[in-house]
Amino acid sequence: MTLISEHSETDTRERILVVAERLFRQIGYQKTTVADIAKELRMSPANVYRFFDSKKAIHEGVARGLMGGVEVEAQRIARSEGPAAARMRQMMKTINRMNTERYVDDSKLHEMVEIAMQEDWQVCVTHMETIGHTIGEVIAQGVATGEFEVDDLEVAALCAGTAMMRFFHPQMIAQCATKPGPTIDQMIDFVIAGLSPRIRAN
Amino acid sequence: MTLISEHSETDTRERILVVAERLFRQIGYQKTTVADIAKELRMSPANVYRFFDSKKAIHEGVARGLMGGVEVEAQRIARSEGPAAARMRQMMKTINRMNTERYVDDSKLHEMVEIAMQEDWQVCVTHMETIGHTIGEVIAQGVATGEFEVDDLEVAALCAGTAMMRFFHPQMIAQCATKPGPTIDQMIDFVIAGLSPRIRAN
Repeated sequence: MTLISEHSETDTRERILVVAERLFRQIGYQKTTVADIAKELRMSPANVYRFFDSKKAIHEGVARGLMGGVEVEAQRIARSEGPAAARMRQMMKTINRMNTERYVDDSKLHEMVEIAMQEDWQVCVTHMETIGHTIGEVIAQGVATGEFEVDDLEVAALCAGTAMMRFFHPQMIAQCATKPGPTIDQMIDFVIAGLSPRIRAN
Repeated sequence: MTLISEHSETDTRERILVVAERLFRQIGYQKTTVADIAKELRMSPANVYRFFDSKKAIHEGVARGLMGGVEVEAQRIARSEGPAAARMRQMMKTINRMNTERYVDDSKLHEMVEIAMQEDWQVCVTHMETIGHTIGEVIAQGVATGEFEVDDLEVAALCAGTAMMRFFHPQMIAQCATKPGPTIDQMIDFVIAGLSPRIRAN
């Protein structure tokens, strides 16, 4: 009985997020109310509040789902076969493509990202940390095979991710589309160069 | 007679920009009107329009002056003595410090930057190109002395500047202040590593 109940609660939670995401895409993040979401699900707003204690909590849940999709794909590539540099490139281009599709091509969802960044949502920080950690995994593999050489793995991962900000950060992808700059492949070449074994001065 | 008149016209133009910048800092960019600027200068709005054909043109003039100050300082460092890597570090930290002081610590001026970026002002692109060119100068000097090694100077300059976006771009400086990430010195180390002679695979 408990199991069935728990299962059904998870289902309801998931259904709320699915409907919320659809409404955000259709009518925009700001204009969507908890009442709209409840109405679509044929439940009372009070019932929605049983699962999410605020409108913001629903929004965070939707953002978490969208960001989670990118993380899963990045991790899949990090754990696949082949040279570390090739996987790093594929992973970075995938993050860029998925973020562009999700948040830039879809102006309604872009609104959600703007607010999430302005309001300093914890989901954004968690996402950045997860992506940073996944980049770190690939760097560690490259260090193990001698492809890469870094002094501090954690710092190298933070720097490699930060160097890609123009291509990872939804606001920067949108803003820089019309600005002069390197191509994503040139930028990845530069990052890989920064991770590669160097001739030491001493 | 012509010379005196030209001199005085340049003076008036300059005075308009000085007053406009002060008002932007005091009452904000959006709230400042051409009438406010004219009133401070004890001239008619029509006279202000003789020098700047729109409010936006005044704003661009102010932005140009602020960005020009950063460019002059970056160029001074680029053309000073010492190893290229040390000058690159000093230049990048100076750009970060000046942009932080100008646009982040001063919330009224930050408003101006937000609008300039959103509206895709040419002054921003020109500034990015000038800073990129100055970074390129230092890279070229480093290549000449053997400190640096790059395949394509222009691409290397674009990548080195883009890698520093978190520390150069006013919106990113403000947004990332509370986010996990590398320190500016760690990021500059990474950029310098990317420019340094490497052990070639072949």
